Amino acid sequence: MSTTSCLHPKWLIPVEPRATVLQNHALVITDDIISAIIPSEQARLQYPDAVHTDLSEHALLPGFVNLHAHSAMSLLRGLADDLALMDWLNHHIWPAEKKHVSDEFVHDGTLHAMAEMIRGGTTTVNDMYFHHEAVATAGLAAGMRTIVGCSILEFPTGYANNADEYISKAVTAHQAFAGQAGVDFRLAPHAPYTVADETFRKIIKLADQLDISIHCHIHETREEIEGSLTEHGKRPLQRLHELGLLTPQLIAAHVVHANDEELALLAKQGVHVAHNPASNLKLASGFARISAMQAAGINVGIGTDGAASNNKIDLLGDLRMAALLAKAQSGNPTSLNAAAALEMATLAGAKALGKGDITGSLVAGKQADIIAIDLSALETLPLFDPVSQIVYAAGREQVSHVWVAGKCLMQERRLQTLSLAELGDKARWWQQRIIQQIA
Amino acid sequence: MSTTSCLHPKWLIPVEPRATVLQNHALVITDDIISAIIPSEQARLQYPDAVHTDLSEHALLPGFVNLHAHSAMSLLRGLADDLALMDWLNHHIWPAEKKHVSDEFVHDGTLHAMAEMIRGGTTTVNDMYFHHEAVATAGLAAGMRTIVGCSILEFPTGYANNADEYISKAVTAHQAFAGQAGVDFRLAPHAPYTVADETFRKIIKLADQLDISIHCHIHETREEIEGSLTEHGKRPLQRLHELGLLTPQLIAAHVVHANDEELALLAKQGVHVAHNPASNLKLASGFARISAMQAAGINVGIGTDGAASNNKIDLLGDLRMAALLAKAQSGNPTSLNAAAALEMATLAGAKALGKGDITGSLVAGKQADIIAIDLSALETLPLFDPVSQIVYAAGREQVSHVWVAGKCLMQERRLQTLSLAELGDKARWWQQRIIQQIA
Repeated sequence: MSTTSCLHPKWLIPVEPRATVLQNHALVITDDIISAIIPSEQARLQYPDAVHTDLSEHALLPGFVNLHAHSAMSLLRGLADDLALMDWLNHHIWPAEKKHVSDEFVHDGTLHAMAEMIRGGTTTVNDMYFHHEAVATAGLAAGMRTIVGCSILEFPTGYANNADEYISKAVTAHQAFAGQAGVDFRLAPHAPYTVADETFRKIIKLADQLDISIHCHIHETREEIEGSLTEHGKRPLQRLHELGLLTPQLIAAHVVHANDEELALLAKQGVHVAHNPASNLKLASGFARISAMQAAGINVGIGTDGAASNNKIDLLGDLRMAALLAKAQSGNPTSLNAAAALEMATLAGAKALGKGDITGSLVAGKQADIIAIDLSALETLPLFDPVSQIVYAAGREQVSHVWVAGKCLMQERRLQTLSLAELGDKARWWQQRIIQQIA
Repeated sequence: MSTTSCLHPKWLIPVEPRATVLQNHALVITDDIISAIIPSEQARLQYPDAVHTDLSEHALLPGFVNLHAHSAMSLLRGLADDLALMDWLNHHIWPAEKKHVSDEFVHDGTLHAMAEMIRGGTTTVNDMYFHHEAVATAGLAAGMRTIVGCSILEFPTGYANNADEYISKAVTAHQAFAGQAGVDFRLAPHAPYTVADETFRKIIKLADQLDISIHCHIHETREEIEGSLTEHGKRPLQRLHELGLLTPQLIAAHVVHANDEELALLAKQGVHVAHNPASNLKLASGFARISAMQAAGINVGIGTDGAASNNKIDLLGDLRMAALLAKAQSGNPTSLNAAAALEMATLAGAKALGKGDITGSLVAGKQADIIAIDLSALETLPLFDPVSQIVYAAGREQVSHVWVAGKCLMQERRLQTLSLAELGDKARWWQQRIIQQIA
């Protein structure tokens, strides 16, 4: 027998169609599905036995899609800041990962990040890390829609010794969770500078066989492009295009540096971009040309990147930053307006993941991946436009409720699937362990 | 008889000396003054009758200094977004101000902004607006350290008709509040493009007579510089230098566009800069050269600007943004590190206001302008470095306590001088009134 509930928000912001705000409307959830969006009065008459929830100070909108994350790195947050990228990777992050990263670390770190994401209104995460079973298990426990990106590179880490071993572990993990609702997999070649041509060819072939897509860091820094010119005599995007990687099955993370021809190429090939505004600033990678990407017709979503280079896992904060940066980078204060930024953080991310038909907007028939934001705080008063208020003024602490596939993950700020106290204890335990091993 | 209280935080971050974090230390407040910073154990022995407050999960630091604000504009937050600066001013903000801005509007809007500032850890605000008695009265009611910047321009507004009338109202307001602790005044010529040479000369003379300093928007946009080249045959900073405005008594707000010679000039003249990172992005003004300013030896503080162009009045958020932007703008991820950003938002702001001897750091003898930030939230765990955690990971909602001159303005998130319910009612009342007059 199916369960029906009705949410009656003050404002219903479906994202699709764009720039729409409904008032006096209810969203009806039947099991895991949005079954209808109808006038509030009609919902009360039509579903007298349903649970009706009044959200009289709230906006209801689709949950955020975090299009690029390394969730488990939450446990390394603030370990090493204010450093150059390669210094940061070579002398701090990679040594710490080598010492500590294990199934247990990844499980605990991913759960920690997911709790932070849920508290901030993120319902889907496109992760990229190691120890894939631990990520998938955490995703199932948290109840988030979880995409497990299986990192592949040529170099040994604590997880595998060479590209073939990373690939084999990805295949094993993918098989182990086949058919599990809410979890799926991506192949994640780390970056052009850490993956050889031969490995990219294997990954493309395997992705085709398994019918899964690909997630890769591309054109994050000027150094990456210069290194490729030296080593391969061409820029990374040209090399990847010749290898056949540039297709609608690819999410390119970062793309901070790209000329007009490269943006036209990405658009023509249907490649999706995961924009990471905070991380690109913190590591001084640069300012991605988001307005130009949108003008070129590229689908752009937003990612937080890992907590070691952000250091918040806060998609609401990062969509604001994306909206602000797009204006200054392009010199045009009308670019990436509030509604467009909100779409970027929801529907565009869902489309990039091939999930535009099931999540990313509030449309009857889609999965019920929904959040409520309480706009009664002093910080969002007075209120002339709820979309502006959400994008430019609200903080993630105003997210009050989160549902994924109709299941409530947070109610009135109380987590329903995870324990804050347990997560805090685990984080402190890891903190002690990491500090001891640094000393 | 004097009152003594002792705060025992987990971390005491005095800002002065830089990059210092004390543990097991207490801060002793006697009346309005920081009377000592001593080991916690010693404080308990030495002051057995004092009120001892344990802040066992908290960092204690100086309150933030908001170096550039138009507080009353909180009531226009989100009224008009995603617009070009002159379109925004000419067709939205200035007409709305002309219709609504009054003593009552400024009083209510300033109180609203001050509540938001206190909730976010700001203890000093350098305001710039009209209806100065209303600003000063709000500051006294809120208990914030308030600098009332008296706007002066050639054009009529609802407040005055010409430069002489603005100047005369500034003098009257300054006299009315002479000697009031916690409130003082600045002359605020609006900008080079709205103030004539003759008026600048009068302002400089008057500032000297009254012994008060000057606060002015300078080099905010490329258009301002181009317009000055057309009208005056020189860039605004050159013009202002020739007029004699560039002295240590000047706070230059924005300074987004400045070449190396101009930065050297500002440094040589001892001019202070109020950096407004969020507003500069939102209005597409550009990226201020903060790393270059620091290298040149310019004292730079941080401002939020008004809520209509930010749209948060969140100095913690803006100091994070300043730290992130400085890295990407300079291409150097080591620039404006966490400790330097924290100093910019506290001590540098105080110095810019000529108040470096009384606020901006936790030093015995200074006024007790102090905040506590609770770092036990999931979002700031694990914790390897409290300064990094405050700058890069914490949200303003983690500010738990605020004191100004030893008086508690917020305790455990509860405002002590202002009523959230009343402020909410007032904001909704203005919202209705403004919407009706737009329609």
